[in-house]
Amino acid sequence: MSAYHPLSNEEAIVLAKTIPGFFPEDAGLDCREIGDGNLNLVFHIKDPESAKSIIIKQALPYAKVVGESWPLSLDRARIEHEALQVQHRLCPDLVPEVYSYDDEMAFTVMEDLSEYTIMRHALIEGKVFPHFAEHIGTFIARTLFFTSDLAMEPRTKKEQVGRFINPDLCKITEDLIFDDPYRLSVNNNYPAAIEDEAEILRTDTALHLEVALLREKFLTRTEALLHGDLHTGSIFITEESTKVIDPEFAYYGPMGFDIGAVIANLLLNLAAQIGWKQDETDRRSHQSWLLQTSLDVWTRFEAEFRKLWDKHAVDPLAHAPGYQDMYIHKVLQDTAGFAGAKMIRRIVGLSHVADIDTIPDEADRERAQRLALSIGKALIMNCRKIHSITEIDDIVRTAAGNRGGMI
Amino acid sequence: MSAYHPLSNEEAIVLAKTIPGFFPEDAGLDCREIGDGNLNLVFHIKDPESAKSIIIKQALPYAKVVGESWPLSLDRARIEHEALQVQHRLCPDLVPEVYSYDDEMAFTVMEDLSEYTIMRHALIEGKVFPHFAEHIGTFIARTLFFTSDLAMEPRTKKEQVGRFINPDLCKITEDLIFDDPYRLSVNNNYPAAIEDEAEILRTDTALHLEVALLREKFLTRTEALLHGDLHTGSIFITEESTKVIDPEFAYYGPMGFDIGAVIANLLLNLAAQIGWKQDETDRRSHQSWLLQTSLDVWTRFEAEFRKLWDKHAVDPLAHAPGYQDMYIHKVLQDTAGFAGAKMIRRIVGLSHVADIDTIPDEADRERAQRLALSIGKALIMNCRKIHSITEIDDIVRTAAGNRGGMI
Repeated sequence: MSAYHPLSNEEAIVLAKTIPGFFPEDAGLDCREIGDGNLNLVFHIKDPESAKSIIIKQALPYAKVVGESWPLSLDRARIEHEALQVQHRLCPDLVPEVYSYDDEMAFTVMEDLSEYTIMRHALIEGKVFPHFAEHIGTFIARTLFFTSDLAMEPRTKKEQVGRFINPDLCKITEDLIFDDPYRLSVNNNYPAAIEDEAEILRTDTALHLEVALLREKFLTRTEALLHGDLHTGSIFITEESTKVIDPEFAYYGPMGFDIGAVIANLLLNLAAQIGWKQDETDRRSHQSWLLQTSLDVWTRFEAEFRKLWDKHAVDPLAHAPGYQDMYIHKVLQDTAGFAGAKMIRRIVGLSHVADIDTIPDEADRERAQRLALSIGKALIMNCRKIHSITEIDDIVRTAAGNRGGMI
Repeated sequence: MSAYHPLSNEEAIVLAKTIPGFFPEDAGLDCREIGDGNLNLVFHIKDPESAKSIIIKQALPYAKVVGESWPLSLDRARIEHEALQVQHRLCPDLVPEVYSYDDEMAFTVMEDLSEYTIMRHALIEGKVFPHFAEHIGTFIARTLFFTSDLAMEPRTKKEQVGRFINPDLCKITEDLIFDDPYRLSVNNNYPAAIEDEAEILRTDTALHLEVALLREKFLTRTEALLHGDLHTGSIFITEESTKVIDPEFAYYGPMGFDIGAVIANLLLNLAAQIGWKQDETDRRSHQSWLLQTSLDVWTRFEAEFRKLWDKHAVDPLAHAPGYQDMYIHKVLQDTAGFAGAKMIRRIVGLSHVADIDTIPDEADRERAQRLALSIGKALIMNCRKIHSITEIDDIVRTAAGNRGGMI
């Protein structure tokens, strides 16, 4: 029988004291459970005396989303912890440090980031982060390049593919992103006002073909170890620093999926500005920052990825003339397509984003939803034709212009 | 400590008697070791009284090829045995039956196919097999379709991907097919007379780009459970029946790799006819059968695969209009590219084919080698442009015509 059980606050405190040299032995620790209770328990444990603190994150054996609950493997705690370690090794400044891990109890003890804000909340408040594109572009480039066959001995990479097979969490993505939005499903969740849009998603067979191709890539391409859920709720941020957390969806998949996730969430916030910034000049200027940052994420990724490739590629044919360009081109097309799929699912699918859902005015909210769908569809429908990042700029501006959304 | 050791003939006989209900208890069994000793021991065990017989195949912990020897995981015996079981379940008439398996000792007890001939030997003798394309097309279509995400629940498929991660055997393919032929390598093995061709392979950077793309597919596409080494030496055949054996290279990879392997080996035999059939009319007619059979392998595969897709696809977007055509088109292009890569490596790489190497006349042998390289390169260089199987017909005829090889 497994010893697994959800930790109590008292147990979490006892555990925290076992981290060697972290808290004084006689510290009187405070503990608060700060998780949302949907997938994990998250304990924040602090010594008021020294002000030192840590996080204990424990996986729950189920997932709850919008009232639905289904069983979920605890193995995702191992995957999250191992992915955190890989990512921290490659990007020590951009990933919290892991102090310890317990397989049976499915918890990880890690660095506390209390001084950081969840990026989604900061974006909703209208904040801008001038270093974000540089930070996340570096994170993506380094984690994807160094876990791919470009940089790893193929036998070692295959063992990693095996360690990161993540059927339960991938299934959530497969259903919620690549299936439900395109059919009648009890998992879908959208206001009756946009039923016309939902119907188009269900009946547009040209769109279905593109989604089928993206889904196939998600299912069959072991290009690199992805974060797998790289939205702005998985990013802690300050003006100067960025930390990527929560890689429990990590698995070997197509590189564009991670980059697309970042861009999708910036563009969802861009669409949401309809509801947040009433002054048009102000709104346009903020939307321009969001769009430019989306493009910069790609540009930073590409520059860093090419640099790593030139310097560190071990693949014997990596330096064949033209190969790097073709590889980058493929990742760009995938990025656009996955970004689009991720925008669509956040409007009509089970799980939404607060950027749009918390817009106070109903009519504004609907306009933001329609704009997000319009950009999402345009990204998907054009992804196989894209040759340069500036085309994504055009696609977003055109979709937004047609919708009266911005710029 | 592992109990593994290579079996003696006496031990093999004892084991054979443990197969329930197969041999009479008092049978006086004969045992011969008939393997080539490079990778496996193969015991043929027969009861002269009843004429019943079985095969015991045991993996050796090393590989020997052309005098070289390197360690090799015994786990390949598990992979071979599990792949045989999957393939036998899907194609009972086309795969030998497995009677038992021992993990620690790395052996499989299976159906004896003594009445069959190894297809490569039969082809060298000039035999034709009118049912071969139908049989192998069915084998490929069924094993690839039913092990892919098209037909499997994604979680089950991912578990299978994990079970069939096969780093050691894949590494052999990666090195011998996608690396060594394109650089100076001690593993390469070709006569000085074709050094000019070998140099072109090492210096043709346009070819290197295409090989890099094929290598990437081999490394990163978990489309279906491949046989992984589907040459004519892995096929037992009679006039009426075909059996596919030896799937120790099985892993989840790109579908075109298996189909390409079959076609490559038929075309290698086609090139070899320069040295075997001196009468031109006779040679042309036989080469026409080999080329037509190569095309028929694809056509049978495609027809069967489409039929299975229409009837059994569980992928929720599988019926998006145009998706099946695009999928087949991708597999066709991969088939051409992998066929080409497999032809090239059999001429300049470590491991050759008897079809060409045993041609008695040296000048004929060299002409056959040059023809095989010419067809192989043309298949690789054109693979991303191909839209229909008839283009492969054209590519082969053109390459052969230019080389004075046939038709």
